[in-house]
Amino acid sequence: MALVLPFEPNEPSIEALVALVKADMERVNATILARTGSDVAMIPEVANHLISSGGKRLRPMLTLACASLSGYRGDGHVKLAASVEFMHTATLLHDDVVDESDMRRGKLAARKLWGNEASVLVGDFLLGQAFKMMVEVGSMTCLDILATAACVIAEGEVMQLAAAKNTATSEDDYLAVIRGKTAELFAAACEVGAVLGQRPKAEQAACRSYGMNLGIAFQLVDDALDYGGSQAKLGKNVGDDFREGKITLPVLLAFRRGDASERAFWQRCLEKGEGNDADLDQAIGLMTRHRAIADTVERARHYGAIAKDALALFPNGQAKDALMEAVDFCLSRAH
Amino acid sequence: MALVLPFEPNEPSIEALVALVKADMERVNATILARTGSDVAMIPEVANHLISSGGKRLRPMLTLACASLSGYRGDGHVKLAASVEFMHTATLLHDDVVDESDMRRGKLAARKLWGNEASVLVGDFLLGQAFKMMVEVGSMTCLDILATAACVIAEGEVMQLAAAKNTATSEDDYLAVIRGKTAELFAAACEVGAVLGQRPKAEQAACRSYGMNLGIAFQLVDDALDYGGSQAKLGKNVGDDFREGKITLPVLLAFRRGDASERAFWQRCLEKGEGNDADLDQAIGLMTRHRAIADTVERARHYGAIAKDALALFPNGQAKDALMEAVDFCLSRAH
Repeated sequence: MALVLPFEPNEPSIEALVALVKADMERVNATILARTGSDVAMIPEVANHLISSGGKRLRPMLTLACASLSGYRGDGHVKLAASVEFMHTATLLHDDVVDESDMRRGKLAARKLWGNEASVLVGDFLLGQAFKMMVEVGSMTCLDILATAACVIAEGEVMQLAAAKNTATSEDDYLAVIRGKTAELFAAACEVGAVLGQRPKAEQAACRSYGMNLGIAFQLVDDALDYGGSQAKLGKNVGDDFREGKITLPVLLAFRRGDASERAFWQRCLEKGEGNDADLDQAIGLMTRHRAIADTVERARHYGAIAKDALALFPNGQAKDALMEAVDFCLSRAH
Repeated sequence: MALVLPFEPNEPSIEALVALVKADMERVNATILARTGSDVAMIPEVANHLISSGGKRLRPMLTLACASLSGYRGDGHVKLAASVEFMHTATLLHDDVVDESDMRRGKLAARKLWGNEASVLVGDFLLGQAFKMMVEVGSMTCLDILATAACVIAEGEVMQLAAAKNTATSEDDYLAVIRGKTAELFAAACEVGAVLGQRPKAEQAACRSYGMNLGIAFQLVDDALDYGGSQAKLGKNVGDDFREGKITLPVLLAFRRGDASERAFWQRCLEKGEGNDADLDQAIGLMTRHRAIADTVERARHYGAIAKDALALFPNGQAKDALMEAVDFCLSRAH
């Protein structure tokens, strides 16, 4: 009689990506630390509050991994990866002011500790440092890609402002927002890795497409988790988006699929911002009934699949495997 | 018997500078208009509210004039001048959020009309566009100068936050603040003009020094005017700095030169922010008694003189004359 061993499927993990870029990532971290330095003491204080708060540093890892995938042998990827992380951190600092957030990654938001002023200005400083590092790397193409990303990110955020409180936002409009505010930096982070490696245009575009679609999937899973994750997993509370009246895909789907009284509920809670904790329970109930969270994850899977197919041009190997698994990992966060 | 004609001394004017760069400036204005365009309607609305509000566009004029002084014959100065104005506009938008200002250039501040969110994000967009234009010009040296300026400006503003409400700030510390928040962009605006003209290092440094010292003089005169100008001249009210509790050189001088009871007055009004309109009258009285406003202008003259000597390396001509007169014009605003 055979012994039945407990079957444990291999959970997708980010560990292959972490291992791939480990040595480079240590240099990126040292660069980040060095480049937040300033004689003006408040700058490293505010910057490091957020930078050292345990973000995954997924974006700089993508730059390093795409440089590795592209066979790049120089040093520029380290500074570009740090630039990408600085651009991301600047966005978070500015977002907290825009959203009037109290928490970020499970800690008090910088603006609660040092004020809106410091968040705006330290964000500006980091953006300046990001461009200084790009200049040091010296690739005009990479500068172009990341400067364009800076514009597109801001456009995406402004679009989100304009769409805010509108529960009838179309899914396409919502996608345009998250392409800008989230996916564009993923796309740029990946593309510059391939540009450094001087890969043919088609492969640069493939890395960009991988990043763009991974970024969309990442944001959609994040949106889903906000109605079903635990605080520990997210560093924010379930229902934060709901309480802030943010219109995300789970809301859009539940609104569209609901009847008139349900739509009135969503409008009261989100457009008028009157939702309380009992309303949050009802919101999650409605989303579950209409499969709004599950289908948001389903949409994310679609973009994840595009991301993986984008990399098909590249030969198999450690870098490609790690990037492929990173997609599955991002999707698996939704479980 | 001789007829006595009313004697009118030639007031220094900005007109020579305006005339020198007129044709180029039209292209800069067209570029500015084109580059604030976005499918996201709120971006041009917010940007143009401020951009079309009748700033003098001194900084882009300086870039054009220094390019002319340096014999530059290309097209890059137009986009760099527009970049400089975008960086300035982004700073103003972010400053309004930081200062919680209600007015800017005699109009309601953008943040009062569209909210802090829009001011932060449209500022970020303009900064991104500025870097995109620099990339299009393609001079890595100019990119380096302007990226460094972006960092130094943010550092200066953060320094100002840290010095805020401290009436015992030293004059040196105050100078460090205005070098960063104001003079650095003047310096960079001038330097990139000379870099485009591929002038020898000494002449690039001369243009930078001209801009830096002009910028300091400009800010000091602005500080003086806040206690003695008219609203029409400034687009802001006399006493704005006082009401916002801003520590500027006229305050620092009056504080240092005053007795204990006067120092208590300054601390009550500025550190505790309790100053009212009667206090403003007293503040101006104390400044007058201690020559604090006049000596602020005197300090400005010192930096103005350095700015003019910096240009001595260049041959006489229309561009040099216009830049020299611009210094006198900035100083003459104080009358």
